[in-house]
Amino acid sequence: MISVEQALEQLFELVEPLESEAVALASAHGRTLAKPVSARRDQPPFPASAMDGYAIHKSDYQVGRTLKVIGEAAAGARFEYKIFEGEAVRIFTGAPVPTGADWIVIQEDIDAIGRQITIRETSETKSYIRPAGADFKTGQTLDAPQVLTPQLIALLASMNIANVSVTRQPEVAIISTGSELVMPGEIPSDDQIIASNTFGLKAMLQASGAKVRVLPIAHDTAPALRTAFALAQGADLILTIGGASVGDHDLVAGITQELGMQRSFYKVAMRPGKPLMAGKLGNAAMIGLPGNPVSAMVCGTIFVIPVVRAMLGLGMAPAPQRHAKLKTEMPINGPRAHYMRARIEDGIITPFERQDSALLTVLAEANALLLRPPHDPAKQAGEDVAFVPL
Amino acid sequence: MISVEQALEQLFELVEPLESEAVALASAHGRTLAKPVSARRDQPPFPASAMDGYAIHKSDYQVGRTLKVIGEAAAGARFEYKIFEGEAVRIFTGAPVPTGADWIVIQEDIDAIGRQITIRETSETKSYIRPAGADFKTGQTLDAPQVLTPQLIALLASMNIANVSVTRQPEVAIISTGSELVMPGEIPSDDQIIASNTFGLKAMLQASGAKVRVLPIAHDTAPALRTAFALAQGADLILTIGGASVGDHDLVAGITQELGMQRSFYKVAMRPGKPLMAGKLGNAAMIGLPGNPVSAMVCGTIFVIPVVRAMLGLGMAPAPQRHAKLKTEMPINGPRAHYMRARIEDGIITPFERQDSALLTVLAEANALLLRPPHDPAKQAGEDVAFVPL
Repeated sequence: MISVEQALEQLFELVEPLESEAVALASAHGRTLAKPVSARRDQPPFPASAMDGYAIHKSDYQVGRTLKVIGEAAAGARFEYKIFEGEAVRIFTGAPVPTGADWIVIQEDIDAIGRQITIRETSETKSYIRPAGADFKTGQTLDAPQVLTPQLIALLASMNIANVSVTRQPEVAIISTGSELVMPGEIPSDDQIIASNTFGLKAMLQASGAKVRVLPIAHDTAPALRTAFALAQGADLILTIGGASVGDHDLVAGITQELGMQRSFYKVAMRPGKPLMAGKLGNAAMIGLPGNPVSAMVCGTIFVIPVVRAMLGLGMAPAPQRHAKLKTEMPINGPRAHYMRARIEDGIITPFERQDSALLTVLAEANALLLRPPHDPAKQAGEDVAFVPL
Repeated sequence: MISVEQALEQLFELVEPLESEAVALASAHGRTLAKPVSARRDQPPFPASAMDGYAIHKSDYQVGRTLKVIGEAAAGARFEYKIFEGEAVRIFTGAPVPTGADWIVIQEDIDAIGRQITIRETSETKSYIRPAGADFKTGQTLDAPQVLTPQLIALLASMNIANVSVTRQPEVAIISTGSELVMPGEIPSDDQIIASNTFGLKAMLQASGAKVRVLPIAHDTAPALRTAFALAQGADLILTIGGASVGDHDLVAGITQELGMQRSFYKVAMRPGKPLMAGKLGNAAMIGLPGNPVSAMVCGTIFVIPVVRAMLGLGMAPAPQRHAKLKTEMPINGPRAHYMRARIEDGIITPFERQDSALLTVLAEANALLLRPPHDPAKQAGEDVAFVPL
C-alpha cells in the first residue's frame, strides 16, 4: 500500500496537459485559458469622463465662473474640436474628453441657463477623467493557464478578444462494473442495486471541466468487460467503478492486464478508498475506483479531479485544503489517511457519527471531507484541522 | 435613494418561483429539485456484506473452529439456502448475506483448505453486515427545494429515481445599450468600446442556474431600444445594461415608461451601482443595471443572482456573506454601502487600492466584495469584516 501523496504523484505521471483549441468567448466560461492573451486596445481607448457634467479647463474651476457651452460629448460620439478657457462641453459618463479639457465639473455643481453654465460648487478634488489605458494598455497580457471566471470573461471582452485558446476538455469514459448493478429507472432483481456512482461522478467531473461518456454497465464476465473497454477507446481517462478489490469476482485487474495495462499502483493507505488501482492503458490513463458509493465519490474528489485539472494544464496539485475548528474530540487515527464526511458551518467542522463507506445519505449531507493523516494523534474540540470542501 | 436591503426586498416582489419540469437524472446536476423525492427502495435492499470473507453463525466465531464451505454469495448472485452452525458461505463485498448467517469473518482471518475454513483470528468486534435499509428506507424523502449536487445525484440514483422534477430555468434577456458599444471581434471606431458586461453577466447568470439570451446591442435611439425590448418578449427577467443614469442620452427610462413599465425604484445607496432601476414590464421583471463594467458585475452579484435564485424557488435571501480579518485599516465609510473589490486569502481580506468602477483588471483579480455598510466606522487592521465571495 502506498500513501495518498505517492498515489497522486504516480497518477500525475500518467497524464499530461492536453492540446488547446479555439472557442468563442461566449462559450469560454469555466474553460481553461491555454495561452496568455494580449489586449488588442487600450481601455479606456481615450481619456473618458467618469461622470455626467461639463468638460472644462481646470483653471475655470472656480465658484461663480460662467462658461459658454459650445457642444456636447456623448459615449460613442465625441466633440471634435479643441476647447479653450471660458468654454465648456456638455459631457456624459463614458464619453471621450474633448482636446483641451482637463477637468469635469459634475452637473450637480453648476447652474445652467440656456447655453451658459455657472459654477456653484468647487468641492471636488479630482478631475473625474479616466486617463486612456487606466484599466489596461494594448499588449497587456492575461496570464495562462487559468480557469475563466465571469470576471475574466468580461475583461477579455473589453480587450476585444472574440475567441480564446483553451485547453481541450479531457474525455473521461466511465465503466461501472458488477452483476449487481442496474441503471436508475430499471426494475432491479432482489439481489441488485442501482448504479449510483456513475451519475455522481459524471456530475462531479463535468463540473471540474471534463467531458464524460457513460458506458454500459459491465456485468462480472470477461466478455462484458472487454466490450466496455473497447467502447472506451479514444478517451483520455478511463474510470472503472467497482471490481478493484480482491474478491474472486473482481475481474477488472485480470482483463486490464490482458489488454496490456501498465499498472502504477494498487491499494492506497486511505479510508474510504483503499482498493484504488491506476495505470496506463494504451494512450489513456486508467483509474479503478472502489465500488462503495462513498469511496468512489471520495476518490473522485481526492484523485480524479486533480488528474482532470492536470490534463487541463492547471498544474499537479492535490485537492485544495482549508482549515477549521473541530467541534468534537476525536480518537487517534489508524495507519490509513481518513477522509471523514463532515459538515462545516461558520468555521466549525463536525464529523458525522456514521462513517460507513456505503452511506450516501451521510455523504449527501456532508459539505467537507475532514482530513486525518495516518497516525494523526487524538484531537480535542476546538483544535485546528484540515478539510477538503465538497 | 433606497438602501440595498430595501432594493432587494422590492426586487423579490417582482418575481415568484417558476413552475417545475421533469428532467432525466443524468441532466439534473446544478438544477433545483422542485418537489421532495421518495426513495423507491431500501438501500441496501438486503443485509449486505461490507467485506470479502465468509458468512457464518456468530456462535462459530471462535479461534480454531473449522467450518464447511457450502456455497458462495456474490454481489448480484445470492446464496439461496439457509446456513446452519458449522457451515460457512464464501461472500464478497456487497453480496446479500445468506439467511441464517449473522456474522462475516474477513478472509484475512481464516485459513482455507479445500472446502473447509479454519478461523485463525477473532479480533473483530463488529459483524461487517450492513442491515437492509441502513442507508435509507423505501419512502424516505429528499427535501426540496435544493440545488442538486453530485452527491445528491448519486443518492437519487441509488433511490432508483430516473427522472426528477426541477424548477424551470429562468430565462434572462440581456440588452446592452449605448452607441459607444460594439461586440468583441468587431472593429470599434475611435469613440467606441467593447461590450464586456454582456459576456461577464451571461457567464455569471448561467452559473447561477439561468438561461441567458444575449440580444443585439441597442444604440442610443428610441427605435433601437424598442426593437430590443420586442426581442426580449417571453423572458422572465429583462436586464438592461447602461442607460440607467441621469444623462440626457439615457433613453431606457423613457422607453420602458412608454412600454408600460411599473417602476419599483430608481437609484440605490451603494457604491458602485447607484443608478440601478427595477420594475415590472408585462409579465417580466426588469432590472436596469449601470453601464460601468464593475458596477454591472457587482449589481449582478448583489441583486440579479438573488433574484434568479428566488425564481428557482430557493428563497428570498441576499448574496451569502462570510467573515474575515481585515489586512489594512480603512477610513469611515460615507452614506452609501460600499462593495469594495478585495482579495481574500487564508482568512485575511485586503481591499484593492484602486476602487474605480471602470477597472475590470482589478475586478478580475478580486475574489471577494468587502462589504461596508453606510456610515461604517473606521476599521483597524485585524478587525472582523463581512464579505461576499466572488
